[in-house]
Amino acid sequence: MAISSHSSVDGLPVAWYNLAADLPQPAPPMFEPSRDEPLRPSSLAAFMPAALAEQEFSTQRWIDIPPEVLEAYRSWRPTPLVRAVRLEKYLRTPARIYFKDESRSPPGSHKLNTAVAQAYYARQQGLQRLVTESGAGQWGCSLAMACSMFGLSCKVFMVNLSCQQRPYRRTLIRLWGGEVIASPSLQTAVGRRLLSRDQDYKGSIGIAIAEAVENALGEAGAAYGCGSVYNYAMLHQTVIGLEAAEQLAALDEKPDVIIGCIGGGSNFAGLAFPFVSQRLAGQPIRFLAAEPRACPTLTRGRYRYDHTDAAGLTPRVKMHTLGHTYVPRDIYACGLRYHGCAPLVSHLVNLGVVEAVALSESAALKAAQLLAATEGIIAAPESAYAVRAAINEAVRCRKQQSSECIVFCLSGHGLCDMEAYGAYLSKQSKTVAEKPSLVDLLRWSKLGYT
Amino acid sequence: MAISSHSSVDGLPVAWYNLAADLPQPAPPMFEPSRDEPLRPSSLAAFMPAALAEQEFSTQRWIDIPPEVLEAYRSWRPTPLVRAVRLEKYLRTPARIYFKDESRSPPGSHKLNTAVAQAYYARQQGLQRLVTESGAGQWGCSLAMACSMFGLSCKVFMVNLSCQQRPYRRTLIRLWGGEVIASPSLQTAVGRRLLSRDQDYKGSIGIAIAEAVENALGEAGAAYGCGSVYNYAMLHQTVIGLEAAEQLAALDEKPDVIIGCIGGGSNFAGLAFPFVSQRLAGQPIRFLAAEPRACPTLTRGRYRYDHTDAAGLTPRVKMHTLGHTYVPRDIYACGLRYHGCAPLVSHLVNLGVVEAVALSESAALKAAQLLAATEGIIAAPESAYAVRAAINEAVRCRKQQSSECIVFCLSGHGLCDMEAYGAYLSKQSKTVAEKPSLVDLLRWSKLGYT
Repeated sequence: MAISSHSSVDGLPVAWYNLAADLPQPAPPMFEPSRDEPLRPSSLAAFMPAALAEQEFSTQRWIDIPPEVLEAYRSWRPTPLVRAVRLEKYLRTPARIYFKDESRSPPGSHKLNTAVAQAYYARQQGLQRLVTESGAGQWGCSLAMACSMFGLSCKVFMVNLSCQQRPYRRTLIRLWGGEVIASPSLQTAVGRRLLSRDQDYKGSIGIAIAEAVENALGEAGAAYGCGSVYNYAMLHQTVIGLEAAEQLAALDEKPDVIIGCIGGGSNFAGLAFPFVSQRLAGQPIRFLAAEPRACPTLTRGRYRYDHTDAAGLTPRVKMHTLGHTYVPRDIYACGLRYHGCAPLVSHLVNLGVVEAVALSESAALKAAQLLAATEGIIAAPESAYAVRAAINEAVRCRKQQSSECIVFCLSGHGLCDMEAYGAYLSKQSKTVAEKPSLVDLLRWSKLGYT
Repeated sequence: MAISSHSSVDGLPVAWYNLAADLPQPAPPMFEPSRDEPLRPSSLAAFMPAALAEQEFSTQRWIDIPPEVLEAYRSWRPTPLVRAVRLEKYLRTPARIYFKDESRSPPGSHKLNTAVAQAYYARQQGLQRLVTESGAGQWGCSLAMACSMFGLSCKVFMVNLSCQQRPYRRTLIRLWGGEVIASPSLQTAVGRRLLSRDQDYKGSIGIAIAEAVENALGEAGAAYGCGSVYNYAMLHQTVIGLEAAEQLAALDEKPDVIIGCIGGGSNFAGLAFPFVSQRLAGQPIRFLAAEPRACPTLTRGRYRYDHTDAAGLTPRVKMHTLGHTYVPRDIYACGLRYHGCAPLVSHLVNLGVVEAVALSESAALKAAQLLAATEGIIAAPESAYAVRAAINEAVRCRKQQSSECIVFCLSGHGLCDMEAYGAYLSKQSKTVAEKPSLVDLLRWSKLGYT
């Protein structure tokens, strides 16, 4: 089986796993932004580091992780695979719930996995700057930190709504030496056009991508850094699933359900893809992508060709999409407010390998509150959707008395996103009780914890 | 040597180390709050869990960590001892800089080490609630989380200034099921007296302690939980130093300088005490306690008997103190705004074993900014003082061409304290450049990092 043929050192994979090598049928090709021609690597290399443009088209199964990237990974990887024993007890489920804790990186999420790779390749190529978008700020923080590690400057077009909702992330990006521009901005033609219509435009990830790409195209020595959607971003994230596979094997566990929240798709893909190869080899593993009802790309979007940015500057890819001009309504999980979904994940949904489920924000935050009370971990508002989906599966297991192994990706922590929880608790205390007490909710003594 | 006689399992100590057993002369006795009589354990047990009151007076060298507490520790301990290679390179120092990363606990600091022990003992005794103070919010978060783990309710009197400066911490405490009261409050006689003088009183840790103690004394089934100062809090924190000693030994390292920031004294003591026993056994180790100039307890305070709270409700202990009614001026390191210092640490300062140094806030935050740029870690504003002291020592080593081993305690992360860094960056960008770019500051390419 593909997944067992790679090697690792002290639990850290030394190569990324490329799902493209094992797909029963290849993903549909990408097309040039404004011509009906298959995309050429050189078109991508015009605004991205060349090594990434090459990886985008690769069908090689294993791609070596450069030693410099491995060295950087070593400072926080391998991340732990945690068994949520107290959550299981609380839910009285016969299921075993594990989460892969990607919140352990300095910026607090999985995004650093691809950020260090991108900064490394950019540096190798002699570039001086990476320009990017950021939804929740997790990606912006990660790329800023990675750029500072590899001696590059970093510019982040951060969705205006996120700038307001997540001031801590804005400060963090600056602390790591990055420059933050609220998007839409006056720095790009795209931004100026939108601001001329509405000065307080809240923005979207698609618009921020368009601004970053436009900015990178217009500046010598600069390239665009992309935190998700593209194949190479999925590729770099497979360290998550490769580590998890080794960790589960060490526990003599075989996963029944693999879960991730989904926006662009990278944390989900990172955990899932190495296991997809097991499924394709015959193992009965289910894959569950949890998306917000407020941006139901996989459950309500159409599977068709569309641009990855809002302005049509980027290649057209076949994906589930709500349309590249779609602006999702405000939710705290800014990182999931994206109109499309990674072509590789969309392809798997289309093939029936991956199931999608849309969840409400309040259900997600409630699940995160329960995780905090039982396991102590504060999930990012994005990861909260994965927590909810995992809890729903565990409750199903209780009803069916099915002893399954559930693994979800905790893509990041929410310690810098307390606005979401503050608002949630205030709402809860108004509707439920004056002072919300989780202690009343918990039944530790009955569970024999102490 | 005492330190090598304890045992550990998978790097986690199974007993706490009690420095009282090895002191060349015992620390001066404590006195009853309002009588000139030596303090009796029963007086402490009136407002604290009895097991803690007992530990306060113990001179037994090793005190077993209860299995339930060990199980809780396992979820985040042992914490890593990280070599700050990139910081060393940046400083061009021949010194080796290590930090013990206590930011890895779910609430983000060392405080959880004693919080779980206190919640456990309270639960064992059949108590229903712990009441406490919180300066920076780190202790409040930790006790709230520990209480939720052991099925207790938790009430936190949080210094009014901190409530305003650290809204995220307030939300976190609530998310873990705790109740937050801004101190001074109308719930206590102490608070009402102060508020009658000034409705916007900013508070201090001493005042919040007084309110918590008064509240705990007045309620059946409740006890006071103390995050620092008392001997038992120092005791529980020795897991930090015990782990570090084992980790250093595995690297064949012997520390020359041990550094911690200091407010009440617990993170410093936790790292230092196990090494103090090595020093008392003849090893030439220096100990450096880094305090803020804004609250210079060890460098400017007097070594005399004083109350640990602002209202005189608690026992009188011999310590370095600025006076129990002293209210330090506003700094972001709220956790260090305490008028006194742990009696055991004060005793060591008096014996000449521990040196103290007072540092400015801007110097501390600048050091933290450098740590972020080089190592990616965001230090808590409190820990920033330890970072500064470590950098100063490393610079001294460069000047003296001395290849020393420097170990500091990173007591917590600052991810929930971005107000401090936001304000610092704004000030910096006004005075230095429009856009602060750490990249300009760093010299990665020259350092051969990439």
